Amino acid sequence: MLEQIGQNAKAAARFLLTAGELKNKALYAIADALIEKTDEIVKANEIDLQAARENGTRASLIDRLILTPARIEGMADGVRQVAALPDPVGKVLDGTVRPNGLKIEKVKVPLGVIAIIYEARPNVTSDAAALCLKSGNAVILRGGKEAINSNKCIADIMRNAIEKAGLPKDCISLIEDTSRESSVALMQLTKYVDVLIPRGGAGLIKAVVENSKVPVIETGAGVCHVYVDESADIDMAANIIFNAKTSRPSVCNAIETILVHKDIAEKALPAIKAKLDEKDVTLRCCERSAAILGSGVEAATEDDWYTEYGDYILAVKVVDSIDEAIAHISKYSTGHSEAIVTKSYKAAQKFTDEVDSAAVYVNASTRFTDGGEFGLGAEIGIATQKLHARGPLGLNELTSMKFIIRGDGQVR
Amino acid sequence: MLEQIGQNAKAAARFLLTAGELKNKALYAIADALIEKTDEIVKANEIDLQAARENGTRASLIDRLILTPARIEGMADGVRQVAALPDPVGKVLDGTVRPNGLKIEKVKVPLGVIAIIYEARPNVTSDAAALCLKSGNAVILRGGKEAINSNKCIADIMRNAIEKAGLPKDCISLIEDTSRESSVALMQLTKYVDVLIPRGGAGLIKAVVENSKVPVIETGAGVCHVYVDESADIDMAANIIFNAKTSRPSVCNAIETILVHKDIAEKALPAIKAKLDEKDVTLRCCERSAAILGSGVEAATEDDWYTEYGDYILAVKVVDSIDEAIAHISKYSTGHSEAIVTKSYKAAQKFTDEVDSAAVYVNASTRFTDGGEFGLGAEIGIATQKLHARGPLGLNELTSMKFIIRGDGQVR
Repeated sequence: MLEQIGQNAKAAARFLLTAGELKNKALYAIADALIEKTDEIVKANEIDLQAARENGTRASLIDRLILTPARIEGMADGVRQVAALPDPVGKVLDGTVRPNGLKIEKVKVPLGVIAIIYEARPNVTSDAAALCLKSGNAVILRGGKEAINSNKCIADIMRNAIEKAGLPKDCISLIEDTSRESSVALMQLTKYVDVLIPRGGAGLIKAVVENSKVPVIETGAGVCHVYVDESADIDMAANIIFNAKTSRPSVCNAIETILVHKDIAEKALPAIKAKLDEKDVTLRCCERSAAILGSGVEAATEDDWYTEYGDYILAVKVVDSIDEAIAHISKYSTGHSEAIVTKSYKAAQKFTDEVDSAAVYVNASTRFTDGGEFGLGAEIGIATQKLHARGPLGLNELTSMKFIIRGDGQVR
Repeated sequence: MLEQIGQNAKAAARFLLTAGELKNKALYAIADALIEKTDEIVKANEIDLQAARENGTRASLIDRLILTPARIEGMADGVRQVAALPDPVGKVLDGTVRPNGLKIEKVKVPLGVIAIIYEARPNVTSDAAALCLKSGNAVILRGGKEAINSNKCIADIMRNAIEKAGLPKDCISLIEDTSRESSVALMQLTKYVDVLIPRGGAGLIKAVVENSKVPVIETGAGVCHVYVDESADIDMAANIIFNAKTSRPSVCNAIETILVHKDIAEKALPAIKAKLDEKDVTLRCCERSAAILGSGVEAATEDDWYTEYGDYILAVKVVDSIDEAIAHISKYSTGHSEAIVTKSYKAAQKFTDEVDSAAVYVNASTRFTDGGEFGLGAEIGIATQKLHARGPLGLNELTSMKFIIRGDGQVR
């Protein structure tokens, strides 16, 4: 079954290599069909919601699962936005003529077949399919069991829409078996799948990275830091920390730990705490920061430095120097986003040179790590690995490249 | 032990982030030291050679193992050539100012710690170390047991040389335990190793791809094709096939199969065979090509289409159309290099559009797939995968990138 899906996807991917403008036609057809079939989607979604309620699923998860007509319109808009982006395929990245007359070009090509393993949000079904299709890739979707009825309905609508537009249905496929086995089998499908992208919580990503034989683009986990340098503007530091922690604590570009230089800690920490108190943020403090802040804070343990709270909790540590701050980040960060708040040119240069994360900020909130905010268009996640792509995973990152060499009989 | 090597390499990699010109100083010091200590290397190599002879190792493998003063001079020259290449680190790939005033730059950075698992050739020890060091990466080398004495000697010389030049010794390390276990353990060292590159035969590469938890850049295996289109110049086709098969049959960019259009097969096949007879190439033919060529050829089986002979053997198949040729390549190729010989503009366009391999040629030999021939400088192998790098793996491909964002207090 999975073997057949893989084989069909690979054949569809060959078709997509030269599909050109048909891809956009198909994307607009998907958007129209989603709107037209809103009632069908809402009905399918209702089955998932009822099952979730019966299983006593918590409210925040049910909220992720709900598809209202407004949300479906949002999904269709998202697909149209992707259609309107420039097509990355065929872009000439480099080119040269060699002394022997060979003309060598390096051009962007699709990756081939992309598999996406994701969790509860059914809107990922159309988001991910649109990004893959636009970049010329066939996609195999494997969503969570909580949203299976919604996902089946959305996938069917998309498959029919692209077929009418002239593309093979199998450019988009959904694995309907949501067992753990189907997910593990997908990770072994090296014959047909070129890349696997997990999208979801830390547990899912870890399982995929550890078990996949298909190459993985790792997205997600963010233990992000703000370092408050001795020369920082304290108001700016408090504002940035407040924004980076509380504007949306559940997302991966929110911060989990602040590091404060010892020479500014006495003044800065009370100001930072006062601001965070507006949203009742719990502080988990090292000994020195606890001594400065007094009562109303908790003690941090070694585990705290590694933890992505995803909640109104912040770990706090006083450091002796910028070197200690960078060493702490090097040890505990997941390599997502880190910021320094400073007035010092030298400290800013040192921090941006030596901190090895996907996004390194000076005097700005880590919350900007996002394809849209970076001006890159829609994205499928934030890559925290170092191979292939790092940072927002947009259309460009869903491509590979090849060399084309034109000669007139050259031999070596 | 391995844990300690990993930890030291990671610390050295942090130092390398800002090592700048010290890297070149260290590379020239390595080259000088290799020349200066030629006798030492030759002596250590003699121990390996003696063991190989006692084990009845075949001559071709012993030839790969031998280090003469001339070969050591070649190694030193290779290191100097790498030193003379431009430094990829710090290159600004892209940059923009966002409407909110954030200045965003995408810059090249080192990957971090690169591990290389390789087989008998001891010259890889200095080649790989030079490329990794130049691109700002610490390297962990794990060579084969046949060359362990040579490798230890070369690694020691390099470590001492870079230390004198001002870099930490641990920018280069060698795993002296050549057991299978040490190799498997290295593949699990995700905490310290950012990328693993296997360099060697198909067996080694398969083992690494299947077992590594560390991200892998796959290099190597080449089942390459030449397709002779119905409109081909027959002399050109015979020349290109002769060159691509016989100039160096053991390398990955040599061809293994030719596909010949049915409308030119009667004329082309005898001419191609006549040329290949000069080097006694064995032909493994499909039924139709065998019928044309008559006696003196062998019958091809299904397995032949998948096989990288690395020898004076060539599989031959007659196809009905360019579509059949492309479908054959899509099924049996390892995605390395393929060529079409044609006078037709349309066929050339179709072939380069639809063949999905790292290098696609029109009217030229596949033997040009090489960093030097492409004008990219030294390389560590040819990547046949689609993520991160495809084709020659040079200095640029040994880097990652990060975003640097400069603001003045922006929050989201």
